[in-house]
Amino acid sequence: MVTGGDGSGHLGGRPTVGIVGAGQLARMTIEAASALGVKVVLLAEDPKAAATEVSGHVLLGAPTDAGQLWALAARCDVMTFDHEQVDLEMLRTFEGAGVAVRPGVSAMQAGVDKAHMRRTLGAAGLPVVPWSAIDPDGPRAMAAQVEDFASAHGWPVVIKASRGGYDGKGVWVVPDPESARRLCATVGAAGVPLLAERYVTMDFELSALVVRSASETRTWPAVETCQVDGICREVLVPGRVSPPVAANAQALAARIAEAIGLIGVMAVELFATGEELTVNELALRPHNSGHWTMEGSVTSQFENHLRAVLGLPLGATDAVFPHTAMVNVLGSPDGSDPSRRLADALAVGGAHVHLYGKDPRPGRKLGHVTVCGQDPAEVRSRAWAAARALGTPEPSPVRPPAPAW
Amino acid sequence: MVTGGDGSGHLGGRPTVGIVGAGQLARMTIEAASALGVKVVLLAEDPKAAATEVSGHVLLGAPTDAGQLWALAARCDVMTFDHEQVDLEMLRTFEGAGVAVRPGVSAMQAGVDKAHMRRTLGAAGLPVVPWSAIDPDGPRAMAAQVEDFASAHGWPVVIKASRGGYDGKGVWVVPDPESARRLCATVGAAGVPLLAERYVTMDFELSALVVRSASETRTWPAVETCQVDGICREVLVPGRVSPPVAANAQALAARIAEAIGLIGVMAVELFATGEELTVNELALRPHNSGHWTMEGSVTSQFENHLRAVLGLPLGATDAVFPHTAMVNVLGSPDGSDPSRRLADALAVGGAHVHLYGKDPRPGRKLGHVTVCGQDPAEVRSRAWAAARALGTPEPSPVRPPAPAW
Repeated sequence: MVTGGDGSGHLGGRPTVGIVGAGQLARMTIEAASALGVKVVLLAEDPKAAATEVSGHVLLGAPTDAGQLWALAARCDVMTFDHEQVDLEMLRTFEGAGVAVRPGVSAMQAGVDKAHMRRTLGAAGLPVVPWSAIDPDGPRAMAAQVEDFASAHGWPVVIKASRGGYDGKGVWVVPDPESARRLCATVGAAGVPLLAERYVTMDFELSALVVRSASETRTWPAVETCQVDGICREVLVPGRVSPPVAANAQALAARIAEAIGLIGVMAVELFATGEELTVNELALRPHNSGHWTMEGSVTSQFENHLRAVLGLPLGATDAVFPHTAMVNVLGSPDGSDPSRRLADALAVGGAHVHLYGKDPRPGRKLGHVTVCGQDPAEVRSRAWAAARALGTPEPSPVRPPAPAW
Repeated sequence: MVTGGDGSGHLGGRPTVGIVGAGQLARMTIEAASALGVKVVLLAEDPKAAATEVSGHVLLGAPTDAGQLWALAARCDVMTFDHEQVDLEMLRTFEGAGVAVRPGVSAMQAGVDKAHMRRTLGAAGLPVVPWSAIDPDGPRAMAAQVEDFASAHGWPVVIKASRGGYDGKGVWVVPDPESARRLCATVGAAGVPLLAERYVTMDFELSALVVRSASETRTWPAVETCQVDGICREVLVPGRVSPPVAANAQALAARIAEAIGLIGVMAVELFATGEELTVNELALRPHNSGHWTMEGSVTSQFENHLRAVLGLPLGATDAVFPHTAMVNVLGSPDGSDPSRRLADALAVGGAHVHLYGKDPRPGRKLGHVTVCGQDPAEVRSRAWAAARALGTPEPSPVRPPAPAW
């Protein structure tokens, strides 16, 4: 089903982007597309997904529904994505048939498959954490591979699902052989492809956001990100990212974009240990660590993603303010809707409140708040004040080293 | 018909705004509403209107269709408007039945009925241009009334339709008695209610944008506006508006908002003659002269309009940059779609391009471009460069005094 303002499903001659997925990233992309006069058609699995209420053009179907993907392709100039839950082999057949898939399928593999990403970056001489694939030879053999890895790199070992993880899901910190055996007996037995990675003692985490089109590459200022229990709680621009570290991180992001042939926006999540940077993960799409760009930079990540996938000139990525803080709005323990407390949040001066219209659940990402200004402590405390007003629980750091709350 | 992401037409417990009209103002309001997690239901006369493609909740009907207005009222917490083509008497019955109409009907009358506005402001001691209603006594008697007015205030006389005019339509500059007779023989015979106004020799036009809620009033920096043939071509922030003139204009806008009991955003269009200001027109809604606020101020006119009509705290209205220029994108003489030239416009550094998705027609407002920065000449020339790239014809000033092109 395509419902259109013109009732016909025909989208006319304006640039049209098809988005696989209809979550908050698609919603914020539509806000940018609306401004540019670019049409968007959504492929939504859930008719109540965040983006559907701001779209007159919605197809219903799973991101792996070949029939609906073909229907989407027929209605757009270029197809892009708001998540990684895709079937790369299926998308390769679309690409082969001449559908403009952006980013391209071979680039996307670096965002979908953590082992592939590490191989690709390692081969390009880019700094990844020491790692090893765990061959799926059954729980006992897999535990032995983890122990072998630990004998070279020490305990704890970080075990990751190669595919399908997000927001801390699919990542386990394994402190000893007994824990490794328990994990492999459950996750390993389930046939999830795993990799082992050295546990990095880092000073902080950061993210370098890059956009690349066929003809140019631009990076936004690198930002500090604070995760708790694997979930991003806040982003500070620039936070603890010093100018030389930012320059390194941004150059690294540009090199990775080049190495994988990126078209679109990518977030490179990094660990900083002193001046040293190692790549943690890639997200080949607009990313939570880039939401601050909506008010904090000349061109938002959503607009530049659209520009890149449509082959348009990219916009400036400079920060507009010396300091910006972005705090995620998580569902309150009582399950209440944050929009009922909107007045309290908007009473905080300078708070730019974004709510995604999602059904509230405790701990679920339901929105974010951005505050820009001159003073880092003030923008941060205002952003937290607004997020708390919306019911966001205070973070309780569990993953060492603790962020400096 | 309400089409909804949830398929049911039920909008749930989040704040919901009904908008009568679905043009570009509704479209940009939806962009702001999407960010805040506020739902919007549209009443669109044309299913292809600019806002329909970014809405999953569209009712079809004329703004004076009582049945569809009731359907809209049933689906929203508050009803607002993107144009003045409304039936105030009908809306009064809604208000009487307890529907939250914002701005209220008695305030709206000042935006809909130019004679009522002049009476109201005059009674409040606010500076309106000398004027007189033309009683609809037939062409001959009406021409005599115009001549009487001219004998007190001189030729030329400005004749305005009291209701229904926009973008220079419904405004005539009448240089002599013969022209007055011709106009009254056509327009007067058609039963259009008219008023006569003294022709103001002004230095420039400006606009003061104000937002008022039940508990607070805020004004944005006043801006210079440049009209050609009655159509706004560019807005300069601050342009030729000196700090004392801006302070006067903003104080005046706040007093008018108070005097008419405004809830929402209002643009006060003013003439500046030296330091003296007179009120030209009021628009009780987000306005073309406030589009610059989307990138140029902390809170856009669209977001603050939503905040005001929903009874939420208002956002800061400070300018973020020393200078901002906004240039309207008008349809090119060849009738081509500006979105086909998007690449050329986006190649202009710092150009924020807004296209409304409207069918192109020569001279029609199809979008606008905003550029913010430090240097007034540079932001203006960049904004014009991007607008020209989109096919906007160069202005040819006809109405004295000519703006300083």
